[in-house]
Amino acid sequence: MAEHIVTFDLAPQPIRVPTGTLLIEAARLAGIDIGQPCGGQGRCGRCAVIVNDGGVRRRSTLRLSNEDVAAGYALACQAVVEGDITVVVPPQEKIERRLTTDRVVADVTVPIGYDPDRVQTIKRVTVTLTPPSMDDQTDDWSRLQVALRQATGVNEVSASLNTLRRIGSILRENDWQVTAIIDSAVRNPHSAIEDPVPAVRLIDLKPGNVPDHAPMWGAAIDIGTTTVTCWLVDLISGEVKKQAAEYNRQIARGEDVISRIIYASKNGGGAELQSLVVNSINALIDEVCLHATIKPIDIVKATVSGNSTMIHLLLNIPASSIRLSPFITAINHVPLLTANEIGLLINPEATIDCLPGVASYVGADITAGVLSSGLADTDKSTLFMDVGTNGEIVLGSRDWLVTCACSAGPAFEGAGVIDGMRATKGAIEEVWINNETFEPTYRVIGSVKPRGVCGSGLISLLSELFITGLIDKGGNFNTYLGTERIRSGAHGLEYVIAFADHTEHNRDIAITPVDIDNLLRAKAAIYAGFSVLADRVGVPLESVEQILIGGSFGKYINVENAIQIGLLPDLPWDRFQFLGNTSVKGAYRALLDRTDRDRIADIAARMTYIELSADNTFYEAFTSALFLPHTDLSKFPSVEEALMKSITSNE
Amino acid sequence: MAEHIVTFDLAPQPIRVPTGTLLIEAARLAGIDIGQPCGGQGRCGRCAVIVNDGGVRRRSTLRLSNEDVAAGYALACQAVVEGDITVVVPPQEKIERRLTTDRVVADVTVPIGYDPDRVQTIKRVTVTLTPPSMDDQTDDWSRLQVALRQATGVNEVSASLNTLRRIGSILRENDWQVTAIIDSAVRNPHSAIEDPVPAVRLIDLKPGNVPDHAPMWGAAIDIGTTTVTCWLVDLISGEVKKQAAEYNRQIARGEDVISRIIYASKNGGGAELQSLVVNSINALIDEVCLHATIKPIDIVKATVSGNSTMIHLLLNIPASSIRLSPFITAINHVPLLTANEIGLLINPEATIDCLPGVASYVGADITAGVLSSGLADTDKSTLFMDVGTNGEIVLGSRDWLVTCACSAGPAFEGAGVIDGMRATKGAIEEVWINNETFEPTYRVIGSVKPRGVCGSGLISLLSELFITGLIDKGGNFNTYLGTERIRSGAHGLEYVIAFADHTEHNRDIAITPVDIDNLLRAKAAIYAGFSVLADRVGVPLESVEQILIGGSFGKYINVENAIQIGLLPDLPWDRFQFLGNTSVKGAYRALLDRTDRDRIADIAARMTYIELSADNTFYEAFTSALFLPHTDLSKFPSVEEALMKSITSNE
Repeated sequence: MAEHIVTFDLAPQPIRVPTGTLLIEAARLAGIDIGQPCGGQGRCGRCAVIVNDGGVRRRSTLRLSNEDVAAGYALACQAVVEGDITVVVPPQEKIERRLTTDRVVADVTVPIGYDPDRVQTIKRVTVTLTPPSMDDQTDDWSRLQVALRQATGVNEVSASLNTLRRIGSILRENDWQVTAIIDSAVRNPHSAIEDPVPAVRLIDLKPGNVPDHAPMWGAAIDIGTTTVTCWLVDLISGEVKKQAAEYNRQIARGEDVISRIIYASKNGGGAELQSLVVNSINALIDEVCLHATIKPIDIVKATVSGNSTMIHLLLNIPASSIRLSPFITAINHVPLLTANEIGLLINPEATIDCLPGVASYVGADITAGVLSSGLADTDKSTLFMDVGTNGEIVLGSRDWLVTCACSAGPAFEGAGVIDGMRATKGAIEEVWINNETFEPTYRVIGSVKPRGVCGSGLISLLSELFITGLIDKGGNFNTYLGTERIRSGAHGLEYVIAFADHTEHNRDIAITPVDIDNLLRAKAAIYAGFSVLADRVGVPLESVEQILIGGSFGKYINVENAIQIGLLPDLPWDRFQFLGNTSVKGAYRALLDRTDRDRIADIAARMTYIELSADNTFYEAFTSALFLPHTDLSKFPSVEEALMKSITSNE
Repeated sequence: MAEHIVTFDLAPQPIRVPTGTLLIEAARLAGIDIGQPCGGQGRCGRCAVIVNDGGVRRRSTLRLSNEDVAAGYALACQAVVEGDITVVVPPQEKIERRLTTDRVVADVTVPIGYDPDRVQTIKRVTVTLTPPSMDDQTDDWSRLQVALRQATGVNEVSASLNTLRRIGSILRENDWQVTAIIDSAVRNPHSAIEDPVPAVRLIDLKPGNVPDHAPMWGAAIDIGTTTVTCWLVDLISGEVKKQAAEYNRQIARGEDVISRIIYASKNGGGAELQSLVVNSINALIDEVCLHATIKPIDIVKATVSGNSTMIHLLLNIPASSIRLSPFITAINHVPLLTANEIGLLINPEATIDCLPGVASYVGADITAGVLSSGLADTDKSTLFMDVGTNGEIVLGSRDWLVTCACSAGPAFEGAGVIDGMRATKGAIEEVWINNETFEPTYRVIGSVKPRGVCGSGLISLLSELFITGLIDKGGNFNTYLGTERIRSGAHGLEYVIAFADHTEHNRDIAITPVDIDNLLRAKAAIYAGFSVLADRVGVPLESVEQILIGGSFGKYINVENAIQIGLLPDLPWDRFQFLGNTSVKGAYRALLDRTDRDRIADIAARMTYIELSADNTFYEAFTSALFLPHTDLSKFPSVEEALMKSITSNE
């Protein structure tokens, strides 16, 4: 096959590739990392590069105008090399790894009465063995097993080959006294059968007698589509010693789960995505360990929460059936694994417990959230939602649970919105618009010049635009208000939130009809989800006694704004509680307490999942919710009142 | 640190090494493989190389004469580089891999009444699943688990992460009908507790419905210190389809277990030895599969037998405590492993069952041999011996078993004897000496010119030398017989078996006092072992009702000769049976039948091990046995008679 020379401006030297090589592959061969927010589907247009010399064939130019193509633009994920070319890679938006600290650290308290002896699966046992002699030539492993069986009362002790390799020297170097770290959860945790043959697995051996009160480390991990969170936990005291979070490094290969699944299904894509998220987790582990001045190898257990796709990708289990009807996961109940099986750089024998999910779009993040939010303990009819990249909703109480997932899309994470961005430094997080001058005021994360608008800012902006009459209930701009903030732009009319001289990047920050449409679709999907669940169980939405909102994003939503755009149902504000990252909190609970772990499995088993794509009432509810706040304004009395006030004050 | 240039005659280019590098390491860096039969201890002298230019320091020159050193010889394992040097590597004896076929293939029959449904742990189960739908979104793994639980009646089905990764696609590609290969032996096989929660492990999934009678492949493997044997077995019919053997590739790193343990304890030595023996096994697997026209991946189970050191080295578990008092193994009962854990290139999920040993020098080869030899089934008082590189002995019957190990050394494998060699093409395997002319006749393996003498040939030679009066009971040459075959050589008097013009390498083949001494020590150790065991249980040796001799070497021993040198007790010949490789036969039985596997564990548990180095009577018995046939000739009436006849015929 013919070969061609591809010269990237960012690469130290040209490379040779055969005819038909995708530009994105050529870039990778040249050592250049080009982000692919849509996972390489040609949908997002963010991997556009400029090709001189014309030797490419563009598979799809939907994202490129004729002018773009004429100017040499090509999507790296959709263009193949057909001749010698020179490629210029324009600067991409850099994905910051570190999250703003105040958005990361959660308040958390050790569960009252936490008793590791009773509920912690990981135990420490010090044993002193009789040294071998000519009269007692028992092998090392049998000698240790007998001592551990006597000390713990279990019937069977297992160990990996790696552990077996270490036993002889550690016993001899420590005069036959060692402290064993063992895991008493050996069988699959979701097994319904009580195990009558208690067994433990040996995780590690420490020299001599480790004092009972010495810390023993675990990690609670939440893999969000956007953000990965890690808590370092002392399994003895139960305390969370350190917290850290960073963007999921998979983002550069797709911003939503669908893009990631598509990327993973490509050759080598699954292994690459696994490696990216494992790198994210390992970086967080390093960070929390550094701050706690411990070594990662001292972490002997981790629980992992996350949506079903994230769990599949962590394990490099093919996830393609998740996105194709009838939307089936490969696995909901993952067996217990060890750290070395997935490449986590903690103790290689550490137990990794991936929490159980319910369905393709209701994963462990939700089952863990149902536990940590208290929904499973309450008598009140409760709506729980986790607003992340996807919107999952649970309606229920102690006695019953129904759940669904709305493909809200990543609009509230700042994607699909031209000036949208994640909630990081430079993001406008709240907006107020004067209802006479139509001039905005805003608050920026980090108190710097803005670069864009994050999710909470978008909700706030949409609400203000609506309440001040800048847009109507259909989301269309009013042109008769006489403000220069509304103007005609590349995508039609737009409202300018910040002019270039007030922004960090010296470009205007504006919201366009395309953005508004995406936001309306996102909020409508979520509200329609509420409606369908409520409808299905015959509980009117207005009788819901509490609304628990998880997701670190959720924490920053202004309830009034969210009700005004029809994202949340119109209920008294005191029924809303913002709980932060309920997923990592559930992982933390499961890390500490085997009964809580069992309860999460029980929650997964008890949840009735409603597949919205198979539900006739969903589309109707969605269409009705595409307006601000809703087709039926009577469902939003407080908004009606606010609109009246606004109109009155303008008169 | 200073660097020096080392130029090997066999290497394409010189290399640079720091001061203090061992010559053997430098050779490896240069890509030259120098055999180290003693494991790099400086004992065997076989790694001698010639160093020009003098820039080496010799750590030990015990194996080198002053003349050798003056001529530039240095032991590569004991000399360190201190300056720029040029090294000439003399040709070493090449280790042939392939064994003479007729010494490899054993007669074997399928156990009568073999019923895989009843006794085989590996099962095949065809299941047809209801495909998922919008009304049944059960995950793939749960769906398969439920079907397998229903089909097999077990409570729990486990699978590795690698298997979990494959499930989704294989189910979808085969219309939800698959045949599962499962292992019902999940818990450690030696566990004394009956498992009340039956569980199976999923090994593989095959498309569609595999017919019940289709073969299902297993491998029985015996790792001898010298020879590795592999049998390919159809687990359905029980038939051994192919057999193959080759020299253990570890030989170049030590010819006996002690040398190997020392080599393994060096940096990287353990991993290297593991890799060498795994390569041996994989080569045999390839060979048997090629001949049977199947793929290695179709092998789903293997049992492994071998002495304790071989099992440790296969698993790269440190073995150093085996050779140091009080001689402790790291592990006797190895948990079930999978092929990918140790690098066997068969089905990566194939169950690997290493059979249990008793002690450092009584390993799985003996427990397997006790089963396959029938010793554990007989009412007769029986002596079982496995004469390989080590001599292990068991005395017992159905009801009782005592065992010991004699450090016989590898003399009967041809090592430690100047013209000794393994039983391969060119080896003299039997010798007759005319008691008038003292001229020898001999038979050579492969009917070619001889290169040396193998174990059976050495026994035969020693016996003939003794019976003809060429040597006396102390092993000393008689000089008054007037034969030119006895002459003075570099090591004192020697007897020439073949003169240079009759040998393949054009050098004389002779036996020297050093060789005779080594052979006497080897046979004395074994006979002393017999004596101690018999003494300990109060069974006189002459009342032993049968003697079962295992080890493929044993098969070629001439009983008359062996009795005449005092290697075997003087019993009627019909009490001796030569069983060939009893170790691989035991592995084969355990591969087929879980009850036989359990019986081997039971044999291991029941054997009383007598540590000879802690036994006062052993040294005495050994000293008495250092003569031909023994100090006490009354123990060998048939030899006394033969000697009388010989003397009479000479008079």
